[in-house]
Amino acid sequence: MHDQNTFEELQAMIRAFVKERDWNQFHNPKDLSISLSLEAAEVLEHFQWKNYEEMERYAKSHKDEVGEELADVLYWVLLLANKLDVDLSSSFKAKMLKNIAKYPVEKAKGNHKKYTEHAE
Amino acid sequence: MHDQNTFEELQAMIRAFVKERDWNQFHNPKDLSISLSLEAAEVLEHFQWKNYEEMERYAKSHKDEVGEELADVLYWVLLLANKLDVDLSSSFKAKMLKNIAKYPVEKAKGNHKKYTEHAE
Amino acid sequence: MHDQNTFEELQAMIRAFVKERDWNQFHNPKDLSISLSLEAAEVLEHFQWKNYEEMERYAKSHKDEVGEELADVLYWVLLLANKLDVDLSSSFKAKMLKNIAKYPVEKAKGNHKKYTEHAE
Amino acid sequence: MHDQNTFEELQAMIRAFVKERDWNQFHNPKDLSISLSLEAAEVLEHFQWKNYEEMERYAKSHKDEVGEELADVLYWVLLLANKLDVDLSSSFKAKMLKNIAKYPVEKAKGNHKKYTEHAE
Repeated sequence: MHDQNTFEELQAMIRAFVKERDWNQFHNPKDLSISLSLEAAEVLEHFQWKNYEEMERYAKSHKDEVGEELADVLYWVLLLANKLDVDLSSSFKAKMLKNIAKYPVEKAKGNHKKYTEHAE
Repeated sequence: MHDQNTFEELQAMIRAFVKERDWNQFHNPKDLSISLSLEAAEVLEHFQWKNYEEMERYAKSHKDEVGEELADVLYWVLLLANKLDVDLSSSFKAKMLKNIAKYPVEKAKGNHKKYTEHAE
Repeated sequence: MHDQNTFEELQAMIRAFVKERDWNQFHNPKDLSISLSLEAAEVLEHFQWKNYEEMERYAKSHKDEVGEELADVLYWVLLLANKLDVDLSSSFKAKMLKNIAKYPVEKAKGNHKKYTEHAE
Repeated sequence: MHDQNTFEELQAMIRAFVKERDWNQFHNPKDLSISLSLEAAEVLEHFQWKNYEEMERYAKSHKDEVGEELADVLYWVLLLANKLDVDLSSSFKAKMLKNIAKYPVEKAKGNHKKYTEHAE
């Protein structure tokens, strides 16, 4: 059974955490985005040099570690959304609607063209 | 007023989107993590070469664009969590508890040491 | 037949380029390192979603494009070395000596353990 | 006095290092590009959370460490160029000529527009 937290609840946790430590003064968008990039790199590092079977095995045996890295990325996404006053749920749903329009089922089904063409 | 979606709801949207297009076959953890990194880089690109005032001005005038980039990062976090069967809400809360223990208020207040020391 | 330029020669080209445009004023290490990261991400983007055969084919048919991306990464490495007064040839050779000591042939031969274990 | 090595010489060192260890079998472009990205992230990490003065101080007191990180990035650039049979000196000079044409001195002098406008 998964937890059922909203973004808003998790963002409130972060706001309290940051406020109690008076860390808002250090949080400019550039350094926050650097954190986001560095944590994303740590997720990637887990799967480097592995082939498909190795990845699958690793993902199962290291679920907690990888979960913690994903939580780290999520932390910075939520903190940036706080900082920039972005409503993440709305942005996400708007983006999904764009994706649905961009990749109509009949054309995109089983077709990974969007992936293999190098987009600028 | 912010939307009140749970992770679970947003992850269900992604699962349906991916399933209808039969894209699961392309989704290995390495390439998904690369997507996560590339989207994090796009967030960062927005704030490059800007000083504090320029960032603040930019963040206000480009809120939708930056919000869309954050939604892109979030998309890959949620998709990876789906793929790896990670319960993101739980991982996130576990991580917050670790952070609270690691940075006790009395020591961490107004102190950005954790930031300026280069951690491995 | 490959060109035979030294780092020093290429760094001198960059120094002249930057000086003529009076761009040194914009070049702080953080933003330069962001450029380095963003260009490295562009190299990576070329190989995303491809399996081994697709990569090989792509690398041959897109040699100029990938070469240009590698040149972009090199540009920022050289510019950072200029800025930080790092002697890149020396640093590189010192690092190679470290690697040689770290991975003795008899132990490292055909053994990619260093790759598959998640370090740090 | 700076060393005067050519790329070709440094690439030959890497080729020998890799061959002796029989590591070529692990070197596909995707994983090599991931290494490049991860090492670029390590350079960036050094300058995170620092303002201009702090960066300057840090760059002086940590010149060897930052130099080693730059050497790590360079290692993967050279290895990728080996692997993909890219002539890096030529690509670099071709790119510089493009940049010279793109940013004519009279227009680009002291003008960091190219930097502050977010390019897709």
